[in-house]
Amino acid sequence: MEQKLPGIEVCLSPDLLYQHDLQNKTVVVVDVLRATSTMCSALFHGVKNIIPVAGIDECLTYRGKENHILAAERDAKTPEGFDYSNSPLLYHNPEVFGKTLVLSTTNGTKILSMVKGDASQVVIGAFVNIDAIAAYLKERNQSILIACAAWKGRVNMEDSLFAGGLAHRLKEHFNLLDDSARMMADLYKNINKDLYIYNTKANHFNRLKALGASADFEYCFIENAAPVVPVLHGIYLVKV
Amino acid sequence: MEQKLPGIEVCLSPDLLYQHDLQNKTVVVVDVLRATSTMCSALFHGVKNIIPVAGIDECLTYRGKENHILAAERDAKTPEGFDYSNSPLLYHNPEVFGKTLVLSTTNGTKILSMVKGDASQVVIGAFVNIDAIAAYLKERNQSILIACAAWKGRVNMEDSLFAGGLAHRLKEHFNLLDDSARMMADLYKNINKDLYIYNTKANHFNRLKALGASADFEYCFIENAAPVVPVLHGIYLVKV
Repeated sequence: MEQKLPGIEVCLSPDLLYQHDLQNKTVVVVDVLRATSTMCSALFHGVKNIIPVAGIDECLTYRGKENHILAAERDAKTPEGFDYSNSPLLYHNPEVFGKTLVLSTTNGTKILSMVKGDASQVVIGAFVNIDAIAAYLKERNQSILIACAAWKGRVNMEDSLFAGGLAHRLKEHFNLLDDSARMMADLYKNINKDLYIYNTKANHFNRLKALGASADFEYCFIENAAPVVPVLHGIYLVKV
Repeated sequence: MEQKLPGIEVCLSPDLLYQHDLQNKTVVVVDVLRATSTMCSALFHGVKNIIPVAGIDECLTYRGKENHILAAERDAKTPEGFDYSNSPLLYHNPEVFGKTLVLSTTNGTKILSMVKGDASQVVIGAFVNIDAIAAYLKERNQSILIACAAWKGRVNMEDSLFAGGLAHRLKEHFNLLDDSARMMADLYKNINKDLYIYNTKANHFNRLKALGASADFEYCFIENAAPVVPVLHGIYLVKV
């Protein structure tokens, strides 16, 4: 009976992605601080769709296109020439309604571009949509890889814990196939509801605090603040 | 004051080693199942010194040399032509007393060969010597990298938890510098004394069980069963 359940694997860093076969899997891309939280927030607050792009230059090719807004982030900062950034709270804003968001970030869009060719489907996860994603994946009933964006390849707390939170929610319906999934599910469970407080220990907390993004940081740990299921269709992220 | 403490970094997989600068650091190499547990057991039970070698062929060049015993492991099994293997319990044996052990394993000696050129010192850690290593590192007071052997690059439970157990013991005297160190210290603390039971969830448990190595598995989670401090001097691992 157990063998028939679909599986869950967790990849803690893009540098470890080569260890996983993405064929016939739903890949959940996560970059809690802040790319995937921003994607969920934008779609929840009325952005029509999102074009995630890896490079700043590619992002700029959309400049001036009607109903497109451009956003980018490098090293947690907004590069020159962009009006929007990788801040989820910036999209609590009626001006974004119905627009297409073109977004490039340090880590989040990089991992997205690494997985999109091979995966059966790519979905976007963050704490702000964790229950919605869990329900969607349970219904879909296909094996999952949770792919953490990490920070320039370095394993980070926030993405690892999201992977754990999702694995914890799904473990009755899926087999946890690797030790990363098991360890992170347990760590998430032990932390219980203190995600925000716990993550103030993370290296990225101090980076964002120094940049005045403490409110963003707090928002990104509010579970179900933006309960959407963003899925990649062609070049677009859209709500299911 | 806090800034003056030496640091602890944790590297969960050899694939992530490039992210760490080894200069002026003590590197703790860990491969709980079973290379570093075997090294500790062998030295504790009277082996004079150990020559860790990466390749099987290199190991075989020592064949017939007086007072040398040869041991190897690949994919958790003993290759043909070796009398000893990567089993820590095998060294509870008076025949090994005073001998030089030449040892090659799948993951443990690989990570050792990756770090030995750059580190200030290389020491060997496992649950069986965890308090001895912690006391040694505290006295030494130099920044530390805990380098997990993992399983063919894949993050594993047992090495990650050892890293957490060591970081947990040292966190009053060192700064935890990365999220891996913080998460694993907390996970170790939460598991408390149930290391053996907890690790029966690990992927490697079933591999070893299938090979009849369940007693080895149990031994490797007995904290302080072999309280030695193995240090690399030239080509030899010796007790401090």
